[in-house]
Amino acid sequence: MAAEPNSTEPHSYDDDPAFPLHRGGKLEVRSTIAVRNKDDLSLAYTPGVARVCTAIAEHPELAYDYTWTSKVVAVVTDGTAVLGLGDIGPAASMPVMEGKSLLFKEFAGVDSVPIALNCTGVDEIVDTVIRLAPSFGGINLEDISAPRCFEIEDRLRAALDIPVFHDDQHGTAIVALAALKNAARLTGRPLSSLRAVVAGAGASGVAVTRMLLNAGIGDIAVSDSKGLVYQGRDGLNPIKLALAADTNKAGLRGSTEEALRGADVFIGLSGSTVQESSVATMADDAIVFALSNPTPEVHPDVARRHARVVATGRSDFPNQINNVLAFPGIFKGALEVRAHSITEGMKLAAADALAAIVGDDLSADYVIPGPFDERVAPAVTAAVADQARAEGVNRI
Amino acid sequence: MAAEPNSTEPHSYDDDPAFPLHRGGKLEVRSTIAVRNKDDLSLAYTPGVARVCTAIAEHPELAYDYTWTSKVVAVVTDGTAVLGLGDIGPAASMPVMEGKSLLFKEFAGVDSVPIALNCTGVDEIVDTVIRLAPSFGGINLEDISAPRCFEIEDRLRAALDIPVFHDDQHGTAIVALAALKNAARLTGRPLSSLRAVVAGAGASGVAVTRMLLNAGIGDIAVSDSKGLVYQGRDGLNPIKLALAADTNKAGLRGSTEEALRGADVFIGLSGSTVQESSVATMADDAIVFALSNPTPEVHPDVARRHARVVATGRSDFPNQINNVLAFPGIFKGALEVRAHSITEGMKLAAADALAAIVGDDLSADYVIPGPFDERVAPAVTAAVADQARAEGVNRI
Repeated sequence: MAAEPNSTEPHSYDDDPAFPLHRGGKLEVRSTIAVRNKDDLSLAYTPGVARVCTAIAEHPELAYDYTWTSKVVAVVTDGTAVLGLGDIGPAASMPVMEGKSLLFKEFAGVDSVPIALNCTGVDEIVDTVIRLAPSFGGINLEDISAPRCFEIEDRLRAALDIPVFHDDQHGTAIVALAALKNAARLTGRPLSSLRAVVAGAGASGVAVTRMLLNAGIGDIAVSDSKGLVYQGRDGLNPIKLALAADTNKAGLRGSTEEALRGADVFIGLSGSTVQESSVATMADDAIVFALSNPTPEVHPDVARRHARVVATGRSDFPNQINNVLAFPGIFKGALEVRAHSITEGMKLAAADALAAIVGDDLSADYVIPGPFDERVAPAVTAAVADQARAEGVNRI
Repeated sequence: MAAEPNSTEPHSYDDDPAFPLHRGGKLEVRSTIAVRNKDDLSLAYTPGVARVCTAIAEHPELAYDYTWTSKVVAVVTDGTAVLGLGDIGPAASMPVMEGKSLLFKEFAGVDSVPIALNCTGVDEIVDTVIRLAPSFGGINLEDISAPRCFEIEDRLRAALDIPVFHDDQHGTAIVALAALKNAARLTGRPLSSLRAVVAGAGASGVAVTRMLLNAGIGDIAVSDSKGLVYQGRDGLNPIKLALAADTNKAGLRGSTEEALRGADVFIGLSGSTVQESSVATMADDAIVFALSNPTPEVHPDVARRHARVVATGRSDFPNQINNVLAFPGIFKGALEVRAHSITEGMKLAAADALAAIVGDDLSADYVIPGPFDERVAPAVTAAVADQARAEGVNRI
């Protein structure tokens, strides 16, 4: 936002259809009531509004009924891990955050506001979001780099009594788990029999690993840029120390490829590359989720030569693992029951609901619904709301 | 937002039409583009959006063109001085903030987002707004109590390169000045010949005083809860010390009433009461703006017995001094030229544009346009944009 008067655009971007589409941004705020005359004004604004304010001051829970607070989500980023672009800062992250708000609205009717912060310290971000919280019914953290994202989410979940959800972690984990459950069903194996390899120990790698463990997977080996994570490896941060304790029962060391030998499942979330020869060493009926975007860890056509089920993050191949299958319904369900938080149980319920949509149509090329399947958001919403009620984290 | 499960409303509010109107809040966020299929999604979101992000990262000024940032205003409060209700906190302030956003949209098509903060320290509020700023094209401060509001606005204006405007100060001042200019014209006197009394040294009292001084009024005496402000009075805070230096040339002491004797103008912004007998002591062709709401300092029918022109903050009497005449057009004009700030010159230009709308229809009962006069917002917008260009504080 530092343009000088009379600055000119470096060149015309309008040959790329993404640019004209983005001109002026992708969102607007609208009033849901009309103000056409003094009577309207005296109810929607002074003096009428003062009676509503007074009622909320006396009975704070009335804010849920008489403001938009309870239905609007803040999409909060610091611009440090935007898509595959990395740390591009808050201003440049806004098109993605607006896009997220657009998807919230289009897929589940959830109102949201993009908030890009120009601070990156954990304390600063946590303090800022806590200060903003009275204006919102939920907080969707987005594109905040690891490992700060873990502490930020944990502290906000502890501090706030509204849903806090880092979509890069849990959205990906929920959709990947749903797809994996169906892939396991297709190949007639329980999750508990599967040994998985997760490449990547960033936000999504850690969250997918944690969720698969919670779902009862047999074992997982996780790799980062230095190879497999194991107990006793030097220089592990606290997040990876905990991973080392909970994964890699065999104590494998070395590269991702070492762990792939005989593994049932590969989940790539690292932006790295996996050779065809390594995929070939996996167990029969192998399941390969090469989720890096836009370039999967292994091309799906190549992986398909050796694997029974292949999924990617891309829309131009079967089985797209797309967060949009999860986050709109997750928040919709949580807001609907005015949940205090989004629990592990609610996330697992969302994955089950998502997996169940596939039903009898299950095939190697259809382990997860497509993003425009209109059954998805209502099913996820209902499952999340029901689970919240079952756990008693609902207000209504 | 601290309701427990199964909490019930204390009683039904639905007999009061303000409550059903406010149910669910008054705002929604909508997408301005459709996402119906994979092609739409691949332009509005990944992978197309990444190209827009990259372009902004390389050329930050492109954020103005390709995000909504440049057209959306944050309406920021801490809930400490809400209407006449005082410090009711952030949650209870939301209906007013939503109302402000509603008025921004309905009166000038300006998008805005209400942000109610649960912190009241000057440093906290300033830091928080600076961190949020990349998400917004302007900051409207609202209902923050004096004297903190002055320092908060000053520090944010210094720190940010986008418009920052405390509406309780400047919105009121602009509309009051416009009305006063017309009242002076009606009574054939230049502003420089008028002696005014301003009751109230809070946000609006200070701002009205400053703006009338900038506009060249003859003299002003300001009173607070301890009486008239004068040089040498004990215990003046820095804001009032500065007022004492710049006002009350005669060094009057005592009550508001002392200063009213022979005064040309009374402007009440204090919630206090002025007796009819005091109004009777004012000069011929007296001008009385009794702006406290809902109870004016003196009833307009009573004031009218002694004053030539009477204005209030109420919609049920002539000459309503209503901020909605100013802030929508002020921000619309400032955003239109991507102004670095809202200057004193831009505020004065807004007041002049507002006063000019009355034109030849000027009368004692018509010194200011009504809130639904459709000429107002375009005239203010154009005047503010033109003045920004004239001062070179525009970007385009």
